[in-house]
Amino acid sequence: MTTTTHDAHTDTPAGRAPAPRPAAGRVSPTGEALRRALDGRYHDLKQRWRDTISAADVVRDPTWDLETAREWALAQMVSLVERGHLVAGFPAALGGIGNQADSVAQFEMLALGDLSLTIKSGVQHGLFGGAINNLGTQWHHETYLPGTMDCSITGCFAMTELGHGSDVQSLETTITYLPDTDEFEVDSPTPTARKAYIGNAAKDGKWAAVFGQLLVAGENQGVHVAMVRIREEDLTPAAGVTIGDQGHKGGLLGVDNGTLAFDHVRIPRRQLLNRYGGVNDEGVYESAIASKNARFFTMLGTLVRGRICVGGGAASAARKALSIATRYATKRTQFRAPGLGEEIRLLDYQTHQRKLLPNIAKAYAYGFAMNELMDQLQRVTDAAGSDPKASRELESRAAAMKAVLTRWANDTIQVCREACGGAGYMSENGLTMLRQDADVFATFEGDNTVLLQLVAKSLLQGYKQTWGDMDLRGTAQATARMVGETVLERTTARAVIDRLVASAARRPESAQLTSRGWHVQMFEDRERHTLEGLAKRMRAAGKASTEDSFTAINACQEHMLAAARAHTDRVVLEAFIAGIEAVGDPYVKSVLIQVCDLYALTVLEENKGWLLEHERIDSTRAKAISQQVLDLSARLSHQAIPLVEGLGANEEWLNSAILR
Amino acid sequence: MTTTTHDAHTDTPAGRAPAPRPAAGRVSPTGEALRRALDGRYHDLKQRWRDTISAADVVRDPTWDLETAREWALAQMVSLVERGHLVAGFPAALGGIGNQADSVAQFEMLALGDLSLTIKSGVQHGLFGGAINNLGTQWHHETYLPGTMDCSITGCFAMTELGHGSDVQSLETTITYLPDTDEFEVDSPTPTARKAYIGNAAKDGKWAAVFGQLLVAGENQGVHVAMVRIREEDLTPAAGVTIGDQGHKGGLLGVDNGTLAFDHVRIPRRQLLNRYGGVNDEGVYESAIASKNARFFTMLGTLVRGRICVGGGAASAARKALSIATRYATKRTQFRAPGLGEEIRLLDYQTHQRKLLPNIAKAYAYGFAMNELMDQLQRVTDAAGSDPKASRELESRAAAMKAVLTRWANDTIQVCREACGGAGYMSENGLTMLRQDADVFATFEGDNTVLLQLVAKSLLQGYKQTWGDMDLRGTAQATARMVGETVLERTTARAVIDRLVASAARRPESAQLTSRGWHVQMFEDRERHTLEGLAKRMRAAGKASTEDSFTAINACQEHMLAAARAHTDRVVLEAFIAGIEAVGDPYVKSVLIQVCDLYALTVLEENKGWLLEHERIDSTRAKAISQQVLDLSARLSHQAIPLVEGLGANEEWLNSAILR
Repeated sequence: MTTTTHDAHTDTPAGRAPAPRPAAGRVSPTGEALRRALDGRYHDLKQRWRDTISAADVVRDPTWDLETAREWALAQMVSLVERGHLVAGFPAALGGIGNQADSVAQFEMLALGDLSLTIKSGVQHGLFGGAINNLGTQWHHETYLPGTMDCSITGCFAMTELGHGSDVQSLETTITYLPDTDEFEVDSPTPTARKAYIGNAAKDGKWAAVFGQLLVAGENQGVHVAMVRIREEDLTPAAGVTIGDQGHKGGLLGVDNGTLAFDHVRIPRRQLLNRYGGVNDEGVYESAIASKNARFFTMLGTLVRGRICVGGGAASAARKALSIATRYATKRTQFRAPGLGEEIRLLDYQTHQRKLLPNIAKAYAYGFAMNELMDQLQRVTDAAGSDPKASRELESRAAAMKAVLTRWANDTIQVCREACGGAGYMSENGLTMLRQDADVFATFEGDNTVLLQLVAKSLLQGYKQTWGDMDLRGTAQATARMVGETVLERTTARAVIDRLVASAARRPESAQLTSRGWHVQMFEDRERHTLEGLAKRMRAAGKASTEDSFTAINACQEHMLAAARAHTDRVVLEAFIAGIEAVGDPYVKSVLIQVCDLYALTVLEENKGWLLEHERIDSTRAKAISQQVLDLSARLSHQAIPLVEGLGANEEWLNSAILR
Repeated sequence: MTTTTHDAHTDTPAGRAPAPRPAAGRVSPTGEALRRALDGRYHDLKQRWRDTISAADVVRDPTWDLETAREWALAQMVSLVERGHLVAGFPAALGGIGNQADSVAQFEMLALGDLSLTIKSGVQHGLFGGAINNLGTQWHHETYLPGTMDCSITGCFAMTELGHGSDVQSLETTITYLPDTDEFEVDSPTPTARKAYIGNAAKDGKWAAVFGQLLVAGENQGVHVAMVRIREEDLTPAAGVTIGDQGHKGGLLGVDNGTLAFDHVRIPRRQLLNRYGGVNDEGVYESAIASKNARFFTMLGTLVRGRICVGGGAASAARKALSIATRYATKRTQFRAPGLGEEIRLLDYQTHQRKLLPNIAKAYAYGFAMNELMDQLQRVTDAAGSDPKASRELESRAAAMKAVLTRWANDTIQVCREACGGAGYMSENGLTMLRQDADVFATFEGDNTVLLQLVAKSLLQGYKQTWGDMDLRGTAQATARMVGETVLERTTARAVIDRLVASAARRPESAQLTSRGWHVQMFEDRERHTLEGLAKRMRAAGKASTEDSFTAINACQEHMLAAARAHTDRVVLEAFIAGIEAVGDPYVKSVLIQVCDLYALTVLEENKGWLLEHERIDSTRAKAISQQVLDLSARLSHQAIPLVEGLGANEEWLNSAILR
């Protein structure tokens, strides 16, 4: 095995003239081309970010205490905004770009720098600004958005309560209409109604978009959102608002999470964000959406971007960790080759290749899938509600990607930390803070276990219903009425994939391990079978009596997760295939084809038990898959540096002492 | 499904008179009995610890900065020593107990409190004190041990260097004998020779046990250890010693890790720890062990306790996390039961049971296996080198358990963090600091990937050779001479297990999923087959030329890990079986039998791919195993509180705001 890393662009026999090796911080030609491919249609935006954002802008010192980290995050956010960043998602008329997909791409780039800063701006511009933008009407936009963009109006997204996190429909906060004064009264009637884990609340927020049950003339119209002042301009708490500081957390020290409680706080009627429902001049509730449930989920649906950002941000953190650990593994040696005496590079060990390369392959796969998801977000936004099925599909996809990407990111950052040994544990090397900051991505914007169940639910319903239109018992009963077999809809690159599958079907006897058509078949098979099995179980559960209903549906939970994961894997593979199709450069394409092989085989290996259990593969093939994962990891390890360059982080952002 | 937790001791129909429910902080009768069973022969020691150690002794505030955490850890260590704790491992003549197993048990208990404090004392008493105790002779014991015990002589274990962590034999530090002055000169000849990640170095240590190549009359006698003064009594660095502070880490803030470099530092000859080799009055090197390699590994072998402690300490951290998350899951509700309206406890959800109960089962399995390992440590210590095979088996077992337990601990603490949602991320709830502190357990005292390879190597050699006697190429070549099939030696409870296996073999057609004999067969089969497969590969690799040797052996790495894991799983199962045998109380026994079922089936499920691939089970059985894991998790969830009480942490040590 050779121990030199070589950039294939410089030594491909058929290739171009040898390029000089890039100087420190410079990117190799292959790395550059991979970057362009993975950035896709967001390349210009992302490259602009790489060209203009320095380490000083986005690198946080991991040793800072809570107070310093908080001050830094606020100051950096303001500074980036002043230079025109972070506001892509706002209307062009106000100085933004009005493009949702671009705002996600910006979030991904910021997350390659620092996650505290990313979440600080995510709360301010994404969640708080997004609530106003999506749930408010013209007056709200004019009144609040300019200040939200430039951070003079700092705000919180006050949804979660101590008693209810995942179950938003059960929030206890009330927003009661008072006809006498034409006001609303915002109140936290119980200790568990206190808003909790709210970013921007502990220190900086002046306003909050408060989620609560809207009560008008004694009737509960479901959860709505009102703009409530929580601090005066001098930052003292507003009257009736009790603010708590949740202090030290497992990470994200730059984000000031806190609690908010409201004691009969009165606000003018127009402060209710009333795009989907509000109280008219006659003091009567009115909404274009009759069903409370549908209204609630339509409102939540407009906030889907936050969930997409969290998945993408977590993936960025994993990309950064992979960039650090892989670069280190090409430099660090340990133990001598038996009989030879030279010390071996970490990356030349099989176990080390097995840790890093399959995860680099996943980073590419998830990157292409994020691009698809961002495109989808923009299409749905542009359609402005005219395609409800597309909206529901987007929500389901966002939940699926968020759950899968955050899980993978946490696991991968940990692998990278350990792959750097003791050095990986020293804060100055950049991995431990990344791990600590990314941790909570598994929880916020929806607990992963809950999200995967929502995905399974919408798959069972074929996106026919919004999540809220049916509880699980309703879903089970509706499933009982569903007929026959599941037809999976390809999510992208339909023609290409049809062709691949057809070609694999024509020559099943010769099906190679690296046949993309065969991969797609296996991924689809697993999804279809898991989903059909779930539907069968849910049908049975739907027949249970009310008393036994919980137990019956509860017994399907693990199957729901399995179906959601199988679905997500398939969607990601399709996105990878589509991403490769769009690449022009034949050499880069050939590298990405191998990376996609490694992704597909890694997922198949992870699901080897299922594939054998359901007789999709035999023992010989199962063993061959594992061997192929090792072989591909070894082969691609020679391209490790260009591959991590392609993940898109400027080297200086890595902020890792071991790489200096 | 019932939503009340009940202690079966109070409601077993056949059972005793109902006991009153224990008051806060009190333990239920079943919990108490499980504790006794899991503590095993260490019960008295552990119960004494629970009776005397308060939260104030061992609970650290997670918000403290580096300086405060370091000061606290030192002060608490001294305070515990003053009260007679932490010194069990030292000779009875000096005020210890002289019992190695007891010192591990003490380490496990301390780790239920705080890991910084545990590692601080682990460095001072375990590593530094252990080096003097095991590698020194009478003068060293008399001179250094009393002060080491009472912490007036604070010390470092200066083994790892920047350039060499896992590869201790390649250390660059030199200890050169100077005949003219009858001294040694300790030197760091290169930047990579700098000692790194050394606990007690950055702030508190006055002495260091320094590992370096011993050079006498121009000949390198291999790595030896010398006592070197690194700070004066006023804590200024000693002449010739450069000390660096490695500052902030991913966790363990209470431990002051630093670097040490030596510039031709001279020490009197007697400061070499010379039990296994040193320079005599004639200035000539002498050792009872002729082979340098054997000498080195004999010396390292005496330090095996540290590795055992790390595995046990990590498991304690996981026990604590499981105690927090499980207790929370019995209190916290979320979402309503469809059709009914009452909110459901987290622990009543299938997905939540699946997260916690199999890990509780593993906590018991690993606890019983730790007890066996501690017994084994004591036997080997008592044998004082008279049974070399037993020593090598102990070293292999220690490495195996360290790698498997630390991996499991990190994964499990993370599962527990996420199982508590946003609350799990708040430092005040105790989980994030636990996760951060336990992280590095995967790395220190031996990188897990390296350790598992050592385990595989000694399995291949049947404990016939010390690790150091052969490099991997030598192992491969020796394997080539090995004949025939592997006979696994049962590690404990041989008669019982023989009987179980024989009974399962007589009735294979009726083999139930919960047949312990069948479990043992499956675990043994997996180990034997994996090991034989590895031997075959290694035999082939042993025939490669010198040039191809690395590549050939490298291709066996993943198989080495698989064999080591299979072996460890089997050893753990056997220890669990032996542990249950020793329990008298029939009710507690019946609970533990179910817990052992869940452990065995969880491991079988994790290895479902392998079992199917090698036709040990068919599809029907594979599915039945998964279902049984869910069913057992649900059944045992009704005993969740007594089960976590049995894990042995005083409730007040949990230091978790969500439980108050």
